[in-house]
Amino acid sequence: AFSKLPNVKTTIFTTMGQLALKHKALNLSQGFPNFKPDRSLIELVTKAMEEGYNQYAPMPGLLELRERIAYKMEDLYGRRYNPEKEVTVTVGATQAIFTIITAFIRGGDEVIVIKPAYDCYEPAIEVNGGVVVPIQLCNSDFKINWEEFRSKITSKTKMVIINTPHNPSGTIFSEADMLQLQKSLEGTNIILISDEVYEHIVFDGQLHHSAAKYSDLSQRSFVCGSFGKTFHITGWKVGYCLGPEALMHEFRKVHQFNVFCVDHAVQKALATYLKDPCNYLELGAFYEAKRDFFLSELANSRFKIKPCQGTYFQLLDYSTITTEPDEVFAERLVREYKIASIPISSFNTNKLDNNLLRFCFAKTDATLEKAVAILCTL
Amino acid sequence: AFSKLPNVKTTIFTTMGQLALKHKALNLSQGFPNFKPDRSLIELVTKAMEEGYNQYAPMPGLLELRERIAYKMEDLYGRRYNPEKEVTVTVGATQAIFTIITAFIRGGDEVIVIKPAYDCYEPAIEVNGGVVVPIQLCNSDFKINWEEFRSKITSKTKMVIINTPHNPSGTIFSEADMLQLQKSLEGTNIILISDEVYEHIVFDGQLHHSAAKYSDLSQRSFVCGSFGKTFHITGWKVGYCLGPEALMHEFRKVHQFNVFCVDHAVQKALATYLKDPCNYLELGAFYEAKRDFFLSELANSRFKIKPCQGTYFQLLDYSTITTEPDEVFAERLVREYKIASIPISSFNTNKLDNNLLRFCFAKTDATLEKAVAILCTL
Ligand SMILES: CSCCC(=O)C(=O)O
Ligand SMILES: CSCCC(=O)C(=O)O
Repeated sequence: AFSKLPNVKTTIFTTMGQLALKHKALNLSQGFPNFKPDRSLIELVTKAMEEGYNQYAPMPGLLELRERIAYKMEDLYGRRYNPEKEVTVTVGATQAIFTIITAFIRGGDEVIVIKPAYDCYEPAIEVNGGVVVPIQLCNSDFKINWEEFRSKITSKTKMVIINTPHNPSGTIFSEADMLQLQKSLEGTNIILISDEVYEHIVFDGQLHHSAAKYSDLSQRSFVCGSFGKTFHITGWKVGYCLGPEALMHEFRKVHQFNVFCVDHAVQKALATYLKDPCNYLELGAFYEAKRDFFLSELANSRFKIKPCQGTYFQLLDYSTITTEPDEVFAERLVREYKIASIPISSFNTNKLDNNLLRFCFAKTDATLEKAVAILCTL
Repeated sequence: AFSKLPNVKTTIFTTMGQLALKHKALNLSQGFPNFKPDRSLIELVTKAMEEGYNQYAPMPGLLELRERIAYKMEDLYGRRYNPEKEVTVTVGATQAIFTIITAFIRGGDEVIVIKPAYDCYEPAIEVNGGVVVPIQLCNSDFKINWEEFRSKITSKTKMVIINTPHNPSGTIFSEADMLQLQKSLEGTNIILISDEVYEHIVFDGQLHHSAAKYSDLSQRSFVCGSFGKTFHITGWKVGYCLGPEALMHEFRKVHQFNVFCVDHAVQKALATYLKDPCNYLELGAFYEAKRDFFLSELANSRFKIKPCQGTYFQLLDYSTITTEPDEVFAERLVREYKIASIPISSFNTNKLDNNLLRFCFAKTDATLEKAVAILCTL
């Protein structure tokens, strides 16, 4: 009775990060780059602080930045968002998602969550009294069965959360998936959260299909983005969400009393930095090269490589190496082999044939080289 | 049924700020300084970014900063907090308070709130299904009647929120008040939130009496602080809270999925900056001089000056000038006299004899001079 979240443990990303530190292991667990952001971005923040952007920003975000975000969305996905009323800057996508859920979920409301899933969705639903309705993808191809999806929709379904490109599997929703989703939600009042923090990290000529592109979807959707993931600044904690005015109005009621606003100087810097689309359009190619570098050398290992269409995560199947459960093997890899990853079971509710570890390849080539050298000894 | 917060409007601080902008008025409404923070603090942030503090900080905060906060608390209030388990860095005190309430308040739980009160407490309680139990202080001396306070405690009381030094009245809880509070909560499981964001802004040789000083209180308390208020950086959005391990453990369950962590470079900079206690110990004298400057010139106006023992807010009684309601008068002051303040009724539930406006004197002397010149024409 004391705890509202009796089942919540310290997140795996903290646990693994600490274990890596303790054992001086290469840390390919939590999703962040180990290289620096653009010098010019740092200089822009300094300039903004010096110019006096040190007091509260406007509650929904610096207008100049919201305009840039709206411009980018229109340019890339053809949806026009009103920067005044449909865009809010947040303390990372995590705070956006927590705040959306808090603004809409009440006791008994059902939320469909596609598993495996990043671990921040469920506690947010539970702390608001909502019920998580998982739909479990199998570990072989991570494809969603839309008939199964539709069978989960009830009169209590208030919300659906999707994540494309998908963490941890690296799959992306195809155009057909998005149309299936749109059709499945037609005629309902279900709100969609589309977590698109890896929108610019797609490979092999594929396209990211944002919920913003589909007018019947976007009218019921919050689309969430992350400057942390896109500009190598996960520690600056800036993201945003977009949604139709009526939904955003409710969102801001919670946002203004949760964090009120986001670092002013950082927002000013990002507004300037976003003026050059190369700063995000080249990200896919950048990480594709890293993925290829990582994978080409891994070809000589005993790991089986899963397809990776996007995100900066690579799943490796270790079933030919050991039958240990993934948590056990992941821990042993840190202790004995000095390399940290994330066991996929931490993204799942059910214990499946979890022979998969997730490795973050947002690392310098030197780090990736060391990682591969270790993995090839197994 | 659509909105979880049907009564929440845009906060008065946004409304008044926008009105001030529109009418090119002096803005003494929202509580933030119109001067710069220390140059050296800005330089420390730049240095930290250059050194690579650009990725996720540890979830509870940079340990070095938590240690500094713990050190300051012990030094000033004699309470030893364990930096590992009893200190968490937050996105301003607002996020701390929202997160505490979310971690503990369930449907039907009662929370005693002393009115007038800063406007972020109540929506956080309501969105979690809690019930606000207000205790209204009168507008003459803002003293709390502890018998009345005790009469509000029921078996459903889960939490009490206090704020000392008090926004907007500028009163501070005396030692006797704190002991009354401690006695009133004895033998209950009630959690206390002590919002102490103006802890260093106390005047005339008075002392701030932190909940941390009273061992029977501190074992049930979250004490919340703000670097934004203390270091003139409200826009950097960094604060913290302290509390006993069992409570903090629950707090962090929500914190890690709400914002996960706080800007890393800013935390690194603050850890260094906090090494010099002068950076916060001199704040009281600094703002006392501003208060005195503001008030000495106001002596010639028709406003009646309320006592101000702390915070950077001054209440002025305008009853000899007009009988207009405070919202109406505040708006007229912006439109016709080009000066923005906050009507005290926005802090109250009941409509009282609200002849009070709140002016923020965290402004340059030049701004204060202009403000006084305007107010003396009324
Ligand atoms: C805030 S910890 C999560 C970082 C991340 O996105 C991941 O590792 O999946
Ligand atoms: C986040 S707006 C509030 C600023 C403030 O503390 C006040 O004006 O009372």
